Amino acid sequence: MSLFTWPIRVYYEDTDSGGVVYYANYLRFMERARTEWLRSLGIEQDRLRQEERVIFAVRSVSVDYFSPARFNDQLNVTVAVVKRGGASWTFEQKISRLDGEQQIALCLGVTKVACLDAEAFHSRPIPKQIQLEIQRVN
Amino acid sequence: MSLFTWPIRVYYEDTDSGGVVYYANYLRFMERARTEWLRSLGIEQDRLRQEERVIFAVRSVSVDYFSPARFNDQLNVTVAVVKRGGASWTFEQKISRLDGEQQIALCLGVTKVACLDAEAFHSRPIPKQIQLEIQRVN
Amino acid sequence: MSLFTWPIRVYYEDTDSGGVVYYANYLRFMERARTEWLRSLGIEQDRLRQEERVIFAVRSVSVDYFSPARFNDQLNVTVAVVKRGGASWTFEQKISRLDGEQQIALCLGVTKVACLDAEAFHSRPIPKQIQLEIQRVN
Amino acid sequence: MSLFTWPIRVYYEDTDSGGVVYYANYLRFMERARTEWLRSLGIEQDRLRQEERVIFAVRSVSVDYFSPARFNDQLNVTVAVVKRGGASWTFEQKISRLDGEQQIALCLGVTKVACLDAEAFHSRPIPKQIQLEIQRVN
Repeated sequence: MSLFTWPIRVYYEDTDSGGVVYYANYLRFMERARTEWLRSLGIEQDRLRQEERVIFAVRSVSVDYFSPARFNDQLNVTVAVVKRGGASWTFEQKISRLDGEQQIALCLGVTKVACLDAEAFHSRPIPKQIQLEIQRVN
Repeated sequence: MSLFTWPIRVYYEDTDSGGVVYYANYLRFMERARTEWLRSLGIEQDRLRQEERVIFAVRSVSVDYFSPARFNDQLNVTVAVVKRGGASWTFEQKISRLDGEQQIALCLGVTKVACLDAEAFHSRPIPKQIQLEIQRVN
Repeated sequence: MSLFTWPIRVYYEDTDSGGVVYYANYLRFMERARTEWLRSLGIEQDRLRQEERVIFAVRSVSVDYFSPARFNDQLNVTVAVVKRGGASWTFEQKISRLDGEQQIALCLGVTKVACLDAEAFHSRPIPKQIQLEIQRVN
Repeated sequence: MSLFTWPIRVYYEDTDSGGVVYYANYLRFMERARTEWLRSLGIEQDRLRQEERVIFAVRSVSVDYFSPARFNDQLNVTVAVVKRGGASWTFEQKISRLDGEQQIALCLGVTKVACLDAEAFHSRPIPKQIQLEIQRVN
């Protein structure tokens, strides 16, 4: 089974004066990859919000940092659904950097994302069509 | 006449791997100061949006950078209205750092902010009450 | 025993088009509070880097999100050391919002921060003087 | 003559609670495009810093905002050198969004970038090899 992977380039904006990517910015990279994974399944979050009145919101995130990324690094971010609930998903995502022929793991994140009503922000079941689409590919 | 001044501390998140504050982040500092200047006049932008259905949006910005800020620096950001129109204001803002007893100018920004309808995003006159409040203090 | 608490105002830059603070930005708020907690103990990280050649780097972070913060909210961020090692600390931090007389908990973060050599990025013991300072107040 | 153009997708992190891209973030987009333009000419800024001890720093920027970008928009950012000095370049960059078959201009930026010594931050001539490379393509 192939893992969804999204490439991300590190720009100056992502780094801090420690010389490495600022720790909160890996969460941005992970969300970009989740957004692109949804898009690869035909799911556009802006249409989802307008048509189904739902948004996805992060309920919890945990990240272990192994090695830092630096300016100009070309990273890969994976997306794997490790738990599918009726109103939430849990993702495992690895960020790595290609060094020669080896992928160096930089950090590993686990993120629980819930489906919410776009206005009231209370929990909502993930729309059926999306559930089916996810099951089909996982 | 006293100039409105807002203190801002530089954190890691604001810097980049060049060792200095990332150039776009000075625009954040300037907006924080404009927000606090409005607050000092009794104007809260969230209430303004709900009650008057207007928001402020930047139409143009120009910044000259003289000297960089670094991690841990304590900065001062000034706010001066240099032009008052019926539907927009132009601000001049200086960001400086206290070095001993001297204020070192780091950058100077000129920002034109327009009053917009919060939904349709077209131009709207600045509410009378706010115009009067600004005239009173300038 | 009093808990260190740092006030943070939510600006436009912190929010996203979901109408709430972007999930990664709570990590920025937590780091600002840790930096100010260190400062309150007389520890300036820029001097630490120059004089002791050490920096602090986040090894792991986990955050549970309960309720969102919005533009203009005034937040409080606490800092408590829950585990003190020779080369790392673990912090528990709560972000809350005052609603009338009640503190509404928005999220809870646990962060492990390691002391590293500022150039080589390998683990280093936390300098003795800092260890003593932290013990004194905790 | 073809204009260098870099595609950028708008993610949640780029937007604010006004529902549009935060005004400072267009400066990030412009810098990403300048970085990729340099890369397209074979110039990697990390190697430049290590080997030539120079970095590029923004001396001034001015942006006119015409129309906002929103979450999920696919943008194009152009890069054109409009002035070549011995120690600085001035760029004109347009950010636009494809709407049907039409490119909608969202903002226009002019940025002056200077070549600096990577440590001392004083002005340095742009390395000859880079000057020649730029002349060749412009």
